[in-house]
Amino acid sequence: MPLPAKAELGQGRLTVDRRCVISLDASAEPRVRKAAIRFCELLSRQTGMPIQPSFATGAERAFLQIQYGAPGEQVQSVKANESYTLEVTDAGARLKAAEPLGVLRGLETLLQLVQMDAGGTAIPAVRIDDRPRFPWRGLLIDAARHWMPVEVILRNLDAMAAVKLNVLHWHLSDDQGFRVECRTFPNLHGMGSDGSYYTREQIREVLAYARDLGIRVMPEFDMPGHTTAWFVGHPELASGPGPYQIERKWGIFDPAMDPAREAVYEFLDRFVAEMAALFDDEYFHIGGDEVNGKQWNANPAIQAFKREKGMKNNHDLQAYFNQRLLKIVQKHGKKMIGWDEILHPTLPKDSVIHSWRGQKSLAQASGQGYLGILSSGYYLDHMLPTSQHYAVDPLGKECADLSEEQKARIMGGEACMWAEFVTPETIDSRIWPRMAAIAERFWSPANVVDVEDMYRRLDAASIRLGRLVTHRSNLPPMLERLADGSETEPLETLLSVLEPLKYYDRPDAREYTSFTPLNRAVDAARPESLTARRFANLVASVLTDASAADAAQARRLLSLWRDNHALLKPVIARAPMLKEVEGHSENLAALAEIGLEALDCVVSKRSPAPGWPARAKTVIERARKPQAELLNMLAAPVQKLAAAAR
Amino acid sequence: MPLPAKAELGQGRLTVDRRCVISLDASAEPRVRKAAIRFCELLSRQTGMPIQPSFATGAERAFLQIQYGAPGEQVQSVKANESYTLEVTDAGARLKAAEPLGVLRGLETLLQLVQMDAGGTAIPAVRIDDRPRFPWRGLLIDAARHWMPVEVILRNLDAMAAVKLNVLHWHLSDDQGFRVECRTFPNLHGMGSDGSYYTREQIREVLAYARDLGIRVMPEFDMPGHTTAWFVGHPELASGPGPYQIERKWGIFDPAMDPAREAVYEFLDRFVAEMAALFDDEYFHIGGDEVNGKQWNANPAIQAFKREKGMKNNHDLQAYFNQRLLKIVQKHGKKMIGWDEILHPTLPKDSVIHSWRGQKSLAQASGQGYLGILSSGYYLDHMLPTSQHYAVDPLGKECADLSEEQKARIMGGEACMWAEFVTPETIDSRIWPRMAAIAERFWSPANVVDVEDMYRRLDAASIRLGRLVTHRSNLPPMLERLADGSETEPLETLLSVLEPLKYYDRPDAREYTSFTPLNRAVDAARPESLTARRFANLVASVLTDASAADAAQARRLLSLWRDNHALLKPVIARAPMLKEVEGHSENLAALAEIGLEALDCVVSKRSPAPGWPARAKTVIERARKPQAELLNMLAAPVQKLAAAAR
Repeated sequence: MPLPAKAELGQGRLTVDRRCVISLDASAEPRVRKAAIRFCELLSRQTGMPIQPSFATGAERAFLQIQYGAPGEQVQSVKANESYTLEVTDAGARLKAAEPLGVLRGLETLLQLVQMDAGGTAIPAVRIDDRPRFPWRGLLIDAARHWMPVEVILRNLDAMAAVKLNVLHWHLSDDQGFRVECRTFPNLHGMGSDGSYYTREQIREVLAYARDLGIRVMPEFDMPGHTTAWFVGHPELASGPGPYQIERKWGIFDPAMDPAREAVYEFLDRFVAEMAALFDDEYFHIGGDEVNGKQWNANPAIQAFKREKGMKNNHDLQAYFNQRLLKIVQKHGKKMIGWDEILHPTLPKDSVIHSWRGQKSLAQASGQGYLGILSSGYYLDHMLPTSQHYAVDPLGKECADLSEEQKARIMGGEACMWAEFVTPETIDSRIWPRMAAIAERFWSPANVVDVEDMYRRLDAASIRLGRLVTHRSNLPPMLERLADGSETEPLETLLSVLEPLKYYDRPDAREYTSFTPLNRAVDAARPESLTARRFANLVASVLTDASAADAAQARRLLSLWRDNHALLKPVIARAPMLKEVEGHSENLAALAEIGLEALDCVVSKRSPAPGWPARAKTVIERARKPQAELLNMLAAPVQKLAAAAR
Repeated sequence: MPLPAKAELGQGRLTVDRRCVISLDASAEPRVRKAAIRFCELLSRQTGMPIQPSFATGAERAFLQIQYGAPGEQVQSVKANESYTLEVTDAGARLKAAEPLGVLRGLETLLQLVQMDAGGTAIPAVRIDDRPRFPWRGLLIDAARHWMPVEVILRNLDAMAAVKLNVLHWHLSDDQGFRVECRTFPNLHGMGSDGSYYTREQIREVLAYARDLGIRVMPEFDMPGHTTAWFVGHPELASGPGPYQIERKWGIFDPAMDPAREAVYEFLDRFVAEMAALFDDEYFHIGGDEVNGKQWNANPAIQAFKREKGMKNNHDLQAYFNQRLLKIVQKHGKKMIGWDEILHPTLPKDSVIHSWRGQKSLAQASGQGYLGILSSGYYLDHMLPTSQHYAVDPLGKECADLSEEQKARIMGGEACMWAEFVTPETIDSRIWPRMAAIAERFWSPANVVDVEDMYRRLDAASIRLGRLVTHRSNLPPMLERLADGSETEPLETLLSVLEPLKYYDRPDAREYTSFTPLNRAVDAARPESLTARRFANLVASVLTDASAADAAQARRLLSLWRDNHALLKPVIARAPMLKEVEGHSENLAALAEIGLEALDCVVSKRSPAPGWPARAKTVIERARKPQAELLNMLAAPVQKLAAAAR
């Protein structure tokens, strides 16, 4: 995962042993050599075998031959060639690419081909011809709303590389924090970050690390809104009177830069100069979203400025700001990218529209000649099932009707990990494994759409990614904390069928600030219950052909859930943080009992007792209600069973 | 854990919230300030709350007041004062220490006091007056036999600090590898390490990291034996003709330095000069163990040298080498320490004897006026139960009869993690949590010996340590690899009652080299089965008072084990690496069935069916046999049950 564009299985297999002779031209770029060493390290970790790389040039009997045509770009761009071919026979593996980037991608594929079975550790003979569908395949990590230390970024880069993503969109400033050391204006990070910011050295470390993995790092400094944290140290940039405090709540806030003051542009010129030199990517993301205009409306000088310039509305005012900012960004050698809101008739055609609104907005931009990428449908913080993201195509919906030329302007997409409800402890579990399926959407051919097959491969991908990121390993410590010393199994059983509230229902459920601990059951629960998904499939299968094995498996699961409350109840009694899920635990038992009775009726083709349907309805309705910001995902499949039993 | 010397619970509790105001003198040492920040970070990780430290001086209402008397030593020594007092009331916590080290120790205690319960997150009111029993409390990590990257060392330092250990004994060279960059003789690491060695910069990083945690780092360069890896690049040091290869097997090997050649001492003088400058600890460990003398006996020049000097045996020859080495070590400002073998009438009294042989050897050394530390009984690679290590006391056995003055020369102990059978993936699971109990032996008063209480506290300590090291988190990925995509639960159930072979039975069971993958069931299994331990306690309790609750719990466990094979069998069929544990899985089911029958007989006070005792005996005997280098730890308690049933 992602599935290659073309793969043909051959005959035989290549044995993997501890001596990994790699044939590589002596003049190969350092990052290619590093990638080969990294390949061996990852192979060691994957297999548990101590694998030692050794290099040779033109070795006939090399385990792996690496060749590429042209040197890579000084700074990786959206034009880089990532294609490769990989041929594995029982004599060796041959990896050929046009550029170093293709080598990196091919090595990740090779890692995924390794099998450990009765014949030992080996790679099946195969011929793969692979290239990405889109040149822009990104993940946005918001390090502003909750601080994410460097190690969070580094490990996520590792995982991104594993699924062939190539852009880290680093959201570095927002109302809740300004996260980069700024030499020119040290009050930006000094007063706007609570001391939690990336030093210049750390930024360089991340860029170098990402480059070695073939990942571009694009910074975002959101302007002119989402800028409260800037104003703590620089109130003179704001459209309203200060003083300002770092924002602790979530939402859209009033503070915005003053587009009418020349000093603001002088400030931004010096700011962008420093940041453009620090970040080497060709693109500079200026945000540009969600300005509510209240500060502008309340400021007489700004109103006068609008009248004077003949601007009809705040959108015009923001367009003016964007044009000024664009000139600054261009002056410092960058191309500008921003969210949908920056689209305006006056915007130059070499800007990129980053759409959080959807394909319609993207199609419109592309139709007008702009480049574009899609993020709508890929919001990981919405806690949606993988299948839902997987179904979203950057060239789907309105974009499907574009001309080929217009389609070519849609460069790909980015998944967004907005950080209102994640901490370093939980963020990986919100990104992974779902991100892997989105990465496949961006890389693999458009016709790779088999959802069941995707889920099957996602299971394996999740285990593999678990060696790089913490989406699996963070769960036991969180369960241990919640259970406060009691055994965690019954809690794990309960949480395995619950999911956090979707979209923006969570902030609506309770008053949250950036200080609120994210250590509750809702934070430990996974965004998608694969257990509930499997059970729903089982129910569907029982209802269509009622195979005895499926029915037995469904019965086994329902019995486990029915009995779980008796085990969890004493744990809850000793662990106060679990009090809030007691209702869920009771409901699960009751729901499972309904499910068992319904299953029996279906399997033995008998009718339920009179009064049972009413009771079933009550139980299912109760289970459906969110509690502790968690949803019981078994309510729907049990309802299906119950309906069939009637 | 370790239990403080003295603790008195008070009334009330101190609430922990996100604002952690710490009162600290402005002139405090940087490492004390760093420790306070680290305290907040660990508290965040522990509670899941975002905790922000802020410093104040003399703040009346500080959450935590830190005071200490004298500045710390430039380089931490065995004389450092680690005592502290900690007073927690509902108004705040006051931590007082003589030196910075005591502050570090007290902060670790404070972390352990934090409770999350119905009343929120808080620390109970308490007064603690604490000091260590021994000044030398160490862990030896062997980075020679299997390479351990820096991150392994760093994370283990974190865990060591959590249980108040203060010496990392870093075993840096052996037959299988020379692991330090040496500027003076670059062939040492260049040819003796397969490229896996610590750079000088990394060594400095480790020393600085350890110093901040109040941990001394003592290097060991084992001489004159265990030196094959030196000879790969420097055969001229050896007593036998070269060339030499890095040793790939385990055991005691012939190669040894030539004590009769002056050039050897000239080499060592320059070598020790560089290493003594790099490592700042006052002690320099020269190993000195296990010279089999074969190369010496085979070398006519060495034999002539012995005759000439009037030496009676090889022990005299080694003593001569040690004296020469001692002078070199002293010349470069260090004190010498070595294993038992260095003890010899000619050895100067300021040397330290490090005993792997036992208290008898230690008592003898102390009786002769030497300082000593104990490692016998603390070999973590022997895979023994925690209780067995816990029962070993540096002042026990022969040492108990020493005079007070002699006892005072016994400075403490070190647990040893020899690395024949560990990799970076598994090493933490062999060190932790057992090390925590040994750390308590070294720190807490001699009368802290309640084994059941130790195990109860060890459970909590293990969870806490799981946030620092990987002894818990490494298991799921290993199980996933073994199960090759199938569900891992039944395998986990089986492994939870198996233990690896003890002492040196494992290398006897199979031919191992340093290239052998350590990725099998025996590597995933924990050194001590706490499940089997709990079951044995349950059986003991059933047999003494046959409480219905205990019997029901025993029945539940036995039923789980009886049914596990049916679940694991299909997994094994699909996962070839598990084939070797199929016999264990079958035996577990059979054993559990015997256990269930025996339990029924005991509880209902009836006799088993005729023929049953014979069958029980057969099943238990079969289960007792090691398979796949693993032992079934339920055989013993089931046998007890069966015996009682007869």
